[in-house]
Amino acid sequence: MRLRPLVRVCLSTALIPTFKVEDYIVVVIDILRATTSFCVALDKGVTEIRPVPSLRACRRLAREGYLTAAERGAQKVPGFDFGNSPFDFLEADLQGKKLAFTTTNGTRALWAVRKAKKIVAGAFVNMSVLLTWLRAQEEPVLLVCSGWKDHVNLEDTLFAGAIATELEGDFRVNDDATLIAMSLYQMAEHRKKYYLEHSAHFERLVELGMQRDVKYSLRRDLHPVLPYYKDGVLIDLLRVQA
Amino acid sequence: MRLRPLVRVCLSTALIPTFKVEDYIVVVIDILRATTSFCVALDKGVTEIRPVPSLRACRRLAREGYLTAAERGAQKVPGFDFGNSPFDFLEADLQGKKLAFTTTNGTRALWAVRKAKKIVAGAFVNMSVLLTWLRAQEEPVLLVCSGWKDHVNLEDTLFAGAIATELEGDFRVNDDATLIAMSLYQMAEHRKKYYLEHSAHFERLVELGMQRDVKYSLRRDLHPVLPYYKDGVLIDLLRVQA
Repeated sequence: MRLRPLVRVCLSTALIPTFKVEDYIVVVIDILRATTSFCVALDKGVTEIRPVPSLRACRRLAREGYLTAAERGAQKVPGFDFGNSPFDFLEADLQGKKLAFTTTNGTRALWAVRKAKKIVAGAFVNMSVLLTWLRAQEEPVLLVCSGWKDHVNLEDTLFAGAIATELEGDFRVNDDATLIAMSLYQMAEHRKKYYLEHSAHFERLVELGMQRDVKYSLRRDLHPVLPYYKDGVLIDLLRVQA
Repeated sequence: MRLRPLVRVCLSTALIPTFKVEDYIVVVIDILRATTSFCVALDKGVTEIRPVPSLRACRRLAREGYLTAAERGAQKVPGFDFGNSPFDFLEADLQGKKLAFTTTNGTRALWAVRKAKKIVAGAFVNMSVLLTWLRAQEEPVLLVCSGWKDHVNLEDTLFAGAIATELEGDFRVNDDATLIAMSLYQMAEHRKKYYLEHSAHFERLVELGMQRDVKYSLRRDLHPVLPYYKDGVLIDLLRVQA
């Protein structure tokens, strides 16, 4: 009998060095809001998203014809086309465009896992597509929560717990961080909104008037895309393979 | 009105650099088994425990008259007086003795937080003494889970969640890692044994025949001591102040 592959959770970007990412397919998670917005932008027709670490790199790509999205401290940075609200992309004409993207947490996580076997981005809005693809790979999976400035956060942990719970059966679980995320999700499943309303990052977003972003980011399967990271860009793997 | 001090949870030694430990009273937690055994040894009359990083340092102190405890990979190291099982100390004559102690996780955590305002060790076996002392300090508290080789573990997270839950009211909670630990504890409170039986480290200990250590480590208030770390040694603060 073939041994089922492992599914594990990394609760913060600061913990990435404690994993051998080369052994895993990595799912980068930044529910509020980078990975949610990646899915929206790709579903709206963006051909590639180039995550970059700095505002300067983002500006340089603007001169090469990229649209630009820039967020710092949960706010859109003036002078760029978009922030990282999903609604920025829902309401824009993006067909055939390329997008340069810099955010506080999500783009750092992508860089930190660059040596993984394969890298995809996950969010509630592409959850079913992600699960189908992970099951088909039959490889160990590491779910990497971006967190907030190196700290563990609730929304990414809940999503990682949801994915691990769905995968259990086809995958093995053998570590405590994964058990903790799964327990949290199973407890919160019917109270997700309650939990998130107690999250620290949620409070920051609400103070900034972004409740509708949160509500949108918790809806499932709105965008059937699979952001796949290779050679410095995210593309929709489903469209490439179609 | 005076603002209540914060209580926070650090889920792994690998996350310690993401906190400014200078701002906190730190509680080091290594339930299975270092901080549990510190409490036993101090309660049995040890005058000081000197945690050291290496077996060599432990041997050198033996020549200076210290008793020695050495654990690696959950096993007692041959040639030393004790491992880190609480029963090693329960069954020994320790009155007036000094003890050098080296373990896989717990002693590393003590070193990593050495710049904190004050440092104490916590376990279920000294829980009430710890809570009383923390409330009296009126300072921010950081609960540091030693974990297992940099990975988050269940038993330390549960204990941190228990302490944060008990302190809430007198203290403020404003971050997600703390909420996660508290949720886990509140869910597990009546199923602590069930939870721990699913923990990875528990499985390791059971494979090594150490179920009674686990059972002992989960009992509350057996040892009314407060291991206090200063100038490289742990002493019982209650005895010093008495």
